[in-house]
Amino acid sequence: MELTISRESHFNAAHRLNVEAWTEAENKAYFGLCNNPNYHGHNYKVIVSLTGEVDSVSGYLFDLKILKQIIDEEIELKFDHKNLNLDVEEFKITNPTVENISILIWKLLRNRIDKKYKLKITLYETERNFVEYNGN
Amino acid sequence: MELTISRESHFNAAHRLNVEAWTEAENKAYFGLCNNPNYHGHNYKVIVSLTGEVDSVSGYLFDLKILKQIIDEEIELKFDHKNLNLDVEEFKITNPTVENISILIWKLLRNRIDKKYKLKITLYETERNFVEYNGN
Amino acid sequence: MELTISRESHFNAAHRLNVEAWTEAENKAYFGLCNNPNYHGHNYKVIVSLTGEVDSVSGYLFDLKILKQIIDEEIELKFDHKNLNLDVEEFKITNPTVENISILIWKLLRNRIDKKYKLKITLYETERNFVEYNGN
Amino acid sequence: MELTISRESHFNAAHRLNVEAWTEAENKAYFGLCNNPNYHGHNYKVIVSLTGEVDSVSGYLFDLKILKQIIDEEIELKFDHKNLNLDVEEFKITNPTVENISILIWKLLRNRIDKKYKLKITLYETERNFVEYNGN
Amino acid sequence: MELTISRESHFNAAHRLNVEAWTEAENKAYFGLCNNPNYHGHNYKVIVSLTGEVDSVSGYLFDLKILKQIIDEEIELKFDHKNLNLDVEEFKITNPTVENISILIWKLLRNRIDKKYKLKITLYETERNFVEYNGN
Amino acid sequence: MELTISRESHFNAAHRLNVEAWTEAENKAYFGLCNNPNYHGHNYKVIVSLTGEVDSVSGYLFDLKILKQIIDEEIELKFDHKNLNLDVEEFKITNPTVENISILIWKLLRNRIDKKYKLKITLYETERNFVEYNGN
Repeated sequence: MELTISRESHFNAAHRLNVEAWTEAENKAYFGLCNNPNYHGHNYKVIVSLTGEVDSVSGYLFDLKILKQIIDEEIELKFDHKNLNLDVEEFKITNPTVENISILIWKLLRNRIDKKYKLKITLYETERNFVEYNGN
Repeated sequence: MELTISRESHFNAAHRLNVEAWTEAENKAYFGLCNNPNYHGHNYKVIVSLTGEVDSVSGYLFDLKILKQIIDEEIELKFDHKNLNLDVEEFKITNPTVENISILIWKLLRNRIDKKYKLKITLYETERNFVEYNGN
Repeated sequence: MELTISRESHFNAAHRLNVEAWTEAENKAYFGLCNNPNYHGHNYKVIVSLTGEVDSVSGYLFDLKILKQIIDEEIELKFDHKNLNLDVEEFKITNPTVENISILIWKLLRNRIDKKYKLKITLYETERNFVEYNGN
Repeated sequence: MELTISRESHFNAAHRLNVEAWTEAENKAYFGLCNNPNYHGHNYKVIVSLTGEVDSVSGYLFDLKILKQIIDEEIELKFDHKNLNLDVEEFKITNPTVENISILIWKLLRNRIDKKYKLKITLYETERNFVEYNGN
Repeated sequence: MELTISRESHFNAAHRLNVEAWTEAENKAYFGLCNNPNYHGHNYKVIVSLTGEVDSVSGYLFDLKILKQIIDEEIELKFDHKNLNLDVEEFKITNPTVENISILIWKLLRNRIDKKYKLKITLYETERNFVEYNGN
Repeated sequence: MELTISRESHFNAAHRLNVEAWTEAENKAYFGLCNNPNYHGHNYKVIVSLTGEVDSVSGYLFDLKILKQIIDEEIELKFDHKNLNLDVEEFKITNPTVENISILIWKLLRNRIDKKYKLKITLYETERNFVEYNGN
């Protein structure tokens, strides 16, 4: 019996969308307000979803207390109340779009979650804009 | 790397559920309050989801500013503050159920979004009733 | 010990904003899209709040099962799945703005709720637009 | 044309996570606060999703009035304002985790919904913890 | 300059509405499903609001990190994952209605918050039922 | 007949909490993660509430189309996708706490809204932290 369990978390961060290889004018034209060199920010909402078998004795697919701890260690500590461009190593070379943030979160958690579970990340940048990534 | 990006939008419209080929009594029995000949209405919430490859330079799957513009042109202009039965050509012959509205929205956007992106529509008629359609 | 208890309810209705005494052009200029002669509609959310003393034995300020029944009889039956302009007597002469709808709801419930309770109505026309009325 | 229609419902229940075969200390260590022998409780939110063909005449995939009635009979009556461990036969032997509750809801509704529709359950135990189950 | 700052928190608890002085039949008739002797439960949402002067140097009315800690100590520890009737001393003699829970929360926090701040509690028992209490 | 009408808006901004007159260590101790010199950010939600008389002819208290335009000009243009500390003149000398941001928004709108209307600002920094300010 395969089932999916999800845990929602939040982090508040500053960022700026900018491609190093492009000119200032190109960046401003492409990213608009999101290119502000002084940064802007968001309350990001992240939903971590694990798919796998339910343990027939405990009735747990995955202990959400442990999942919360992994999210705290890998995501909250790294992203919360941070400037994604300046404080997160990976975004010194990669543009911190909502797409790229979700891919990085997936990679960070994939290292910590047993491969017998499928992993999917849903990341809201605002209430109206969000992405989903499952590693495929 | 395939990812899904979504943009939420809203429109407020009146409608009435009614099948021309049925008698007044049949329509009333089948659709109940939704058959009110004077119409009722909803705040519709629509989520447009595109699945595709993330551009390795910009970090964008699809520019949400452009997606918002397409939604404004194709959906807001056509449905917002309208009577779906009277003001929308397609619903003069088709019953504007939440199912049929989602199919029409999918078709309208499919014409505007490059085929390299998969397209899915999620449409909420109320907070508690919603449909999903991906063209299959 | 004075306390306020609130119950949320919903109704879905069509309406049109229009002032009989104005010309068609004046109405269109003033009310814009809301003046569509074919109507549009909303999922209205109404919060009914009663302020009074908590009964020291039961621990109830007002039985919410009874409040729900009063709301069903006075508000749901009258407004849900209706056209406010055509189906609600009071709006044949008054413009069904969110302000005027909240005032009517307040009057309808005031007749049914013992005067020892203060009564306040909060009415959402959309998630982003709402009014509050307490009879003063 | 295959489409998915969903209906959201709610029930408020008490429960306790506990495995009969384990010692008191093992249960407390594994389930933590959720093992409180006096029970705790939740407002559960359940979303029932049916996937199938839209009827070309009515424009309905499934009549939501009927789906609501089935949910009321099978889920609300059985779970709402109940103690899952004491009042629900199936949880006298099975641990009422959110995973196991979703599986039971799926089974109860599968008996009532025509097999031509795929059935999926989404169950929120809190705003931040939820599961999805589709019978596979 | 007087301002109000609010912090939202949550706890999940079981309870039963029952008045010791009444017969079983009276309790069942008055409280209905809420009188289930086996208990039911809720995800309670509590909003703690402090009104006072903003400090002209720090720009803080009250440090929300400290407010969160006080709420954790006084409310979470006492109510979260508890049976209100059995685990909370005050509700062994008082009926744990949403009204009475809000009054108890107010008293517990009033002891911890400097009297120069006005204190108000908003407590949601479900998304649709809630109370407000400010000590008057 | 006095009534209150409200309009919700949003802006996404970066900020840092810091008092110039304090040492780096004092700021870090007092503001914690919020003192990150590289900034962090939020999706701010602002609710603008006007209280006044309903016009007996139009049924409007205040035209929400005009209120939206004023909010766009005074708040969105100034705060959205900005760094509050660097891009907003007033916060070069004042600490951009949620309290101080709400006071500034109130002042900016007070200049634009006729004094016959009472004005109140509700500002959410996160879903769980918010302030209310009405100029008293």
